[in-house]
Amino acid sequence: MTGSSTRLWGGRFTSPTAADMAAFNDSFRFDERLADFDIRGSMAWSRALAQAGLIDETECNTLLQGLQQIASEFEAEIFGIHVGDEDIHTAVERRLTELVGAVAGKLHTGRSRNDQVATSFRLFCLDSSHQLQQRLRELQRALLAQAHHHIHTLMPGYTHLQRAQPMTFGYWCLAYIEMFDRDYTRLEQAAQHMRVLPLGSGALTGNSLNIDRQALADELGFDAISTNALDAVSDRDFVAELLFVAALTGTHLSRMAEDLILYSSAEFGFVELADAYSTGSSLMPQKKNPDSMELLRGKSGRLMGNLVAILTVLKGLPLAYNKDLQEDKEPLFDSIDTLDLGLHIAAAVVISMQMNPERMAAALEDSMFATDLADVLVRQGMPFREAHHKVGQLVRHALHSQVSLRALPITDYQSIHPGFDETIYALFDAHQSVAQKNSIGGCSPERVNEQIARWEATLAWC
Amino acid sequence: MTGSSTRLWGGRFTSPTAADMAAFNDSFRFDERLADFDIRGSMAWSRALAQAGLIDETECNTLLQGLQQIASEFEAEIFGIHVGDEDIHTAVERRLTELVGAVAGKLHTGRSRNDQVATSFRLFCLDSSHQLQQRLRELQRALLAQAHHHIHTLMPGYTHLQRAQPMTFGYWCLAYIEMFDRDYTRLEQAAQHMRVLPLGSGALTGNSLNIDRQALADELGFDAISTNALDAVSDRDFVAELLFVAALTGTHLSRMAEDLILYSSAEFGFVELADAYSTGSSLMPQKKNPDSMELLRGKSGRLMGNLVAILTVLKGLPLAYNKDLQEDKEPLFDSIDTLDLGLHIAAAVVISMQMNPERMAAALEDSMFATDLADVLVRQGMPFREAHHKVGQLVRHALHSQVSLRALPITDYQSIHPGFDETIYALFDAHQSVAQKNSIGGCSPERVNEQIARWEATLAWC
Amino acid sequence: MTGSSTRLWGGRFTSPTAADMAAFNDSFRFDERLADFDIRGSMAWSRALAQAGLIDETECNTLLQGLQQIASEFEAEIFGIHVGDEDIHTAVERRLTELVGAVAGKLHTGRSRNDQVATSFRLFCLDSSHQLQQRLRELQRALLAQAHHHIHTLMPGYTHLQRAQPMTFGYWCLAYIEMFDRDYTRLEQAAQHMRVLPLGSGALTGNSLNIDRQALADELGFDAISTNALDAVSDRDFVAELLFVAALTGTHLSRMAEDLILYSSAEFGFVELADAYSTGSSLMPQKKNPDSMELLRGKSGRLMGNLVAILTVLKGLPLAYNKDLQEDKEPLFDSIDTLDLGLHIAAAVVISMQMNPERMAAALEDSMFATDLADVLVRQGMPFREAHHKVGQLVRHALHSQVSLRALPITDYQSIHPGFDETIYALFDAHQSVAQKNSIGGCSPERVNEQIARWEATLAWC
Amino acid sequence: MTGSSTRLWGGRFTSPTAADMAAFNDSFRFDERLADFDIRGSMAWSRALAQAGLIDETECNTLLQGLQQIASEFEAEIFGIHVGDEDIHTAVERRLTELVGAVAGKLHTGRSRNDQVATSFRLFCLDSSHQLQQRLRELQRALLAQAHHHIHTLMPGYTHLQRAQPMTFGYWCLAYIEMFDRDYTRLEQAAQHMRVLPLGSGALTGNSLNIDRQALADELGFDAISTNALDAVSDRDFVAELLFVAALTGTHLSRMAEDLILYSSAEFGFVELADAYSTGSSLMPQKKNPDSMELLRGKSGRLMGNLVAILTVLKGLPLAYNKDLQEDKEPLFDSIDTLDLGLHIAAAVVISMQMNPERMAAALEDSMFATDLADVLVRQGMPFREAHHKVGQLVRHALHSQVSLRALPITDYQSIHPGFDETIYALFDAHQSVAQKNSIGGCSPERVNEQIARWEATLAWC
Repeated sequence: MTGSSTRLWGGRFTSPTAADMAAFNDSFRFDERLADFDIRGSMAWSRALAQAGLIDETECNTLLQGLQQIASEFEAEIFGIHVGDEDIHTAVERRLTELVGAVAGKLHTGRSRNDQVATSFRLFCLDSSHQLQQRLRELQRALLAQAHHHIHTLMPGYTHLQRAQPMTFGYWCLAYIEMFDRDYTRLEQAAQHMRVLPLGSGALTGNSLNIDRQALADELGFDAISTNALDAVSDRDFVAELLFVAALTGTHLSRMAEDLILYSSAEFGFVELADAYSTGSSLMPQKKNPDSMELLRGKSGRLMGNLVAILTVLKGLPLAYNKDLQEDKEPLFDSIDTLDLGLHIAAAVVISMQMNPERMAAALEDSMFATDLADVLVRQGMPFREAHHKVGQLVRHALHSQVSLRALPITDYQSIHPGFDETIYALFDAHQSVAQKNSIGGCSPERVNEQIARWEATLAWC
Repeated sequence: MTGSSTRLWGGRFTSPTAADMAAFNDSFRFDERLADFDIRGSMAWSRALAQAGLIDETECNTLLQGLQQIASEFEAEIFGIHVGDEDIHTAVERRLTELVGAVAGKLHTGRSRNDQVATSFRLFCLDSSHQLQQRLRELQRALLAQAHHHIHTLMPGYTHLQRAQPMTFGYWCLAYIEMFDRDYTRLEQAAQHMRVLPLGSGALTGNSLNIDRQALADELGFDAISTNALDAVSDRDFVAELLFVAALTGTHLSRMAEDLILYSSAEFGFVELADAYSTGSSLMPQKKNPDSMELLRGKSGRLMGNLVAILTVLKGLPLAYNKDLQEDKEPLFDSIDTLDLGLHIAAAVVISMQMNPERMAAALEDSMFATDLADVLVRQGMPFREAHHKVGQLVRHALHSQVSLRALPITDYQSIHPGFDETIYALFDAHQSVAQKNSIGGCSPERVNEQIARWEATLAWC
Repeated sequence: MTGSSTRLWGGRFTSPTAADMAAFNDSFRFDERLADFDIRGSMAWSRALAQAGLIDETECNTLLQGLQQIASEFEAEIFGIHVGDEDIHTAVERRLTELVGAVAGKLHTGRSRNDQVATSFRLFCLDSSHQLQQRLRELQRALLAQAHHHIHTLMPGYTHLQRAQPMTFGYWCLAYIEMFDRDYTRLEQAAQHMRVLPLGSGALTGNSLNIDRQALADELGFDAISTNALDAVSDRDFVAELLFVAALTGTHLSRMAEDLILYSSAEFGFVELADAYSTGSSLMPQKKNPDSMELLRGKSGRLMGNLVAILTVLKGLPLAYNKDLQEDKEPLFDSIDTLDLGLHIAAAVVISMQMNPERMAAALEDSMFATDLADVLVRQGMPFREAHHKVGQLVRHALHSQVSLRALPITDYQSIHPGFDETIYALFDAHQSVAQKNSIGGCSPERVNEQIARWEATLAWC
Repeated sequence: MTGSSTRLWGGRFTSPTAADMAAFNDSFRFDERLADFDIRGSMAWSRALAQAGLIDETECNTLLQGLQQIASEFEAEIFGIHVGDEDIHTAVERRLTELVGAVAGKLHTGRSRNDQVATSFRLFCLDSSHQLQQRLRELQRALLAQAHHHIHTLMPGYTHLQRAQPMTFGYWCLAYIEMFDRDYTRLEQAAQHMRVLPLGSGALTGNSLNIDRQALADELGFDAISTNALDAVSDRDFVAELLFVAALTGTHLSRMAEDLILYSSAEFGFVELADAYSTGSSLMPQKKNPDSMELLRGKSGRLMGNLVAILTVLKGLPLAYNKDLQEDKEPLFDSIDTLDLGLHIAAAVVISMQMNPERMAAALEDSMFATDLADVLVRQGMPFREAHHKVGQLVRHALHSQVSLRALPITDYQSIHPGFDETIYALFDAHQSVAQKNSIGGCSPERVNEQIARWEATLAWC
């Protein structure tokens, strides 16, 4: 039995918390991670209490010194947990009492765990968002370095996993830089919602203590102050948003992983991952597997699961705070950690992988120039749709003859349409085909170079 | 058997599409809904082709007139669908050919369905986001009207569904206005990502036709132009974002619904929904059920399901476009429609419901002033934690004696702590307790009035 | 305004249902689909009322004839919907009144829509489960036919998408037959839970009419009778189970689709889907895309989304029936329809696809016999782990020398371990390697033949 | 850098695994939990190798003794983890080598981690399923004990959270016993699928060693043997099934939690949870919150999230084993642990809670007998629908008059219908109304007693 005497709220109760209930209820084992942010919040609150005249200067300093000491203990990993440390807030207040005596009991004046934890958790999420943004930049930089090397490295572009049109590997890299940049922006947008201070909301209706909430916000780095306490203590939108951005980033990683798993198969043979990021088989001596990318692809599952978890928790909850909300933390911690390491691994894999330009070039085939053939007819005034159909017939003819388009004699072309002449054989040149895709967003080296320059500027100063 | 001859791509094929495959593959039955946006995109593309010299002025006008005619047919709901109308794009091109002849075949020059559908769908999503924002404002206005009437209507505030502290119903209304305002902001943020033009990306690598994409963006109302075609044709982040905002809005609606279902129970009795938004029982003649709110609570399920659907679709897809992406539309359409009607119903319910101030006031009880009692001791210098414990003992004593706190004689108070005197009986005044919660975000009428004024200003001009 | 006078429950109400509320609340547009099952339930209920003496024989016959007439109208698709037809139950009762007059008002005696819809929906789900089982058998038979043809068709087996060990395409087919058989079994298990009759539960506490529920169960084909009405009217476990089986079946389809999409890429080239189940590109004339399989892979998304939807709906609902439960139908209908067509398409694709045994055989490579090489040393007494390491070194040596294992001279083998001799070159024989995998569950033709025989027996009589 | 030399598969590799990759890849930190099952599998495999003549008796005994020693070390929690312990299998083999030398390297003959982990994980899941079944029985017994005490304790039954008809609290208890019994049955069904042995499948195509798989199955307690290795090593249906049953059980717990949270509100006041399973507020001294039930309700979120995680992992995976599948364990462990403690807490809360029969009885109101009033007219031959409408008018009249139905004079009744007489006042008797609900599944004490007897028999022998 955990004595309720060590809990913050025991006065009204006749029986202590059951041991199994403590195991079910207590959150210190995971919310310990909020220690730094909780203590920062308490230090700011101490100063706010002093400013409002609710404690004197000496008391304030005593509290601040005690809190500083506790922060040091957490940093040095020597903070001793006690039976009855229900959560990080209780543990800190308990330790503070040990360190500074009864004055510790003044810290919680006008504050509830509801606004306290909302504040600490927002600070944590802000910190995590910033950390993930750095990780996204790390991955973008790795992709940019590969893009640099492969501006002219030809490879098939695929749609429906069928060879479609020639492009370059540098262009492929830029596609993923774009995706991860949207994730970066979404983190920034999510952070805007995090930067609203709930502290001072009391349990649900605000406080009556003339606390200067603007000063609190300034000290803790919030941009705004919540304007309705009932909402502020039960709002977990910022958690759901962060989990959504994490889940969507996870789908991007899963797409890149899929591409690289395909490309490192023997059938594609476009890339070889570094040994350092591959593993072998316990049975088959020849195997070298792209485990890093498979795990990355798989981890999209937990990122989606964590998002579903928080949305389910929120569904149907009445106002205001309900204990269900304690279930907000573990999914978030898991998603942050998964993404933090996952993005780093992705960057490490990308920077260390070896492309195989010969295999990539060899995968180009004549049929990929079919659209260029159609354009010949279009330039002669034929509607594109008809030209498309004519070239489709050529492709069918070549397939049935089991030869490539280039190997068909000009007479075959002309039997489909007399407008074809020998100049069409010059079309089967991937470098030229790529260079012509010169619209904004196209795969031509000229456009790719422009984009590389843009990204270098963007990624340089972060 | 649907003849492939009516399809856009049949030249290369020897057998037509199977009838069951057509049923599985064809999307016209649902993407017909994009007709307006698809036609707008095609009109812009016609002008771009003309500007680039790929069609002449006459051809351009012919295409524009034909497209205008088709738009009219859709508006008048007389557009006739044909076997072989694989999707909205195919249907429009087929009809255009009927109307203007072979020149219709020039429209698709340099364009693929990949960039075409991405453009149409973004336009649709933008339109839907704007529509949902109006619905959110409608609901916020309904809540604001109720807030106005109930600035002084006392009721218990709840945490853990236990009576916690006195507040007002006006304050409750403001909490939901806050939530829905975050949803409004999220829609705005999501719309920023939608306003990037993919048109001109071709199938996956851009185009070589000197199309002026900036002019396209300007004509169609996009803020920016995609800078990597490979990404642009396979990016569905904007769908996932919109589905996420819809799902999160759904949890907010489910919370409000839960509150109103509770409040309309006989046990609470705080509110009676209008007959027009309630239903009865087929068996029990006395029943009046808050079905509107139950449905609203339940519909959070499909909103979450639709989000999971799109994220699952995206998981593990290689670049670039894959047909899996056709599964992006039905979940989105369903979430938009669900939320569009759901938000409107919520507004209609809120504006027409009758509060019962007597029942709300009667639900206040003495123990809700316990924190105020603790503050008496705090003002005498007692640490809050100790004061909390003392008052907890008083509460326990009152419970065991089966009397309310107010009914305990002063001697009982003083036996707990001598600092109590007769003035404490004046604390049991909910209006006064509420008025003292005067910090920013607090429930005092003064603060609530400020917030109402702020929301009036915000909601007035939209 | 929809007049409440046409509703089943209007007596207590002073205002009619609002038109927007009717649009939000009414379910006839989708639960019309339950018509047959609803009418069967009503016919059984009529007989039960007669048996209990609550209506006389004449009245019973009148009701039965009227219901039969309505069933015919639904079958002939001439049932006319009226304003106020809130749901299928209301519509049927309204029409019955038109047909037989006031006696129609006796049908609902002792019955509520709560037990009525639970009954109809269970009957629908049973029917759907049976239908899906037939579809699974159809797909298994298609796979079995391919297995028959390809008992000896060599191909690489993959793990981590890396070539691992030789196997046959027949063996691949059997793997999927196994998966879909588990789905078949799960449908059977789910159906067991569906076959519990809720009819007779009244609104929530049972009925007092001496209805013979056993006779109802017998007539309607239920195996058991619910034993707690409170549970029976609010139990939707059977819906969640069916949606789960559908979602898991969807992941199996997505895996098979992924394999076939990979195998139909130019890089693998193992299979060509029939033209009838492929589509082309609107832009690129050469493209032939495996759209059928991509859609199948993508539809796993909506199947998962529908499961999440129902679980979210159920979360946190108090007893007993709540209107939220009306949200159980659309996700289920969608999953049933998706799977019904999806399984059929999968079967059609499998039966019509053309394998390319030459490409499959060509994909075998020497390193896939590395485990067989290790077994040579194991048979000489070397611990497997050491043998694995030795052969791993051989593989590395061959990779660096850019030759295949078979091309390494025997001296290279012997420098790794003297136990190797010339007989090892005979190991590089895929047919032999496959034949040796002769344990139960192994890929040898002997075992595959056994399994084919077993499946033929299983699939023959269904 | 973790040296690859300690890994099972290093021979082919030139560079060791990167430290960050080891952190990303290695699973020992969580799959250590499979130690017992892994060792059991290895002991069975040792005997199978000996039986097949692949190792001699002495070697077999050496392996068995070494494995036994390792099992003891895990049990005593003294097993020392080393750098390079990639997973539980590697760690055990590494330790075995330390203990018995090179013969340890023979253990992995013909076995891969693919079939090994599938076997261990199935054994774990079977064990967990059995454990959860015991927990369900514990909860059912707690509910049964309460049912016993409250066969005659009247309370309102609710639909739409509106008072509907009288019932008893014993009947409420039985509803939940039913729900949890379905979960029990589902676990049994899921376990049937788990009891299929994958061991002997090798990496993906079976083995060539004449291993007696039936003997393995018998020793390890499996009912059947997998018949296709390709499927067997990549099948995680049993994980998805278990996670689904957990998620559905979670929704049942969330429903019971919701009921008890409602019932412990001041407005309902039907129940008081034990102090031992409640907690207080850090700010408000009077609060006693049903945290145990709120957490239980909230934990449905993570249970659903874990199900989504595994289904997402499986989506789109090609055959056979892919490393993504390593993501199967943490969600499963989390769901098992969540449910194991959650069910126990639910039982402890149910058994210790105090019902308040006075408050429950007081919540009955006259309108709940409206259906009984309608039955009076029905017995006089009036169609139920008309009777329903008549009584609905009476209810409306009473509401407008602000009196209860019982307080309306008989003349008011007769003005609605002359068939009413003074005997109707006797209907307002909840005990009698409840007793009349005497159909199978009804709430009458007679039926409830029957059900209690049935459950006592069922729950007695488990």
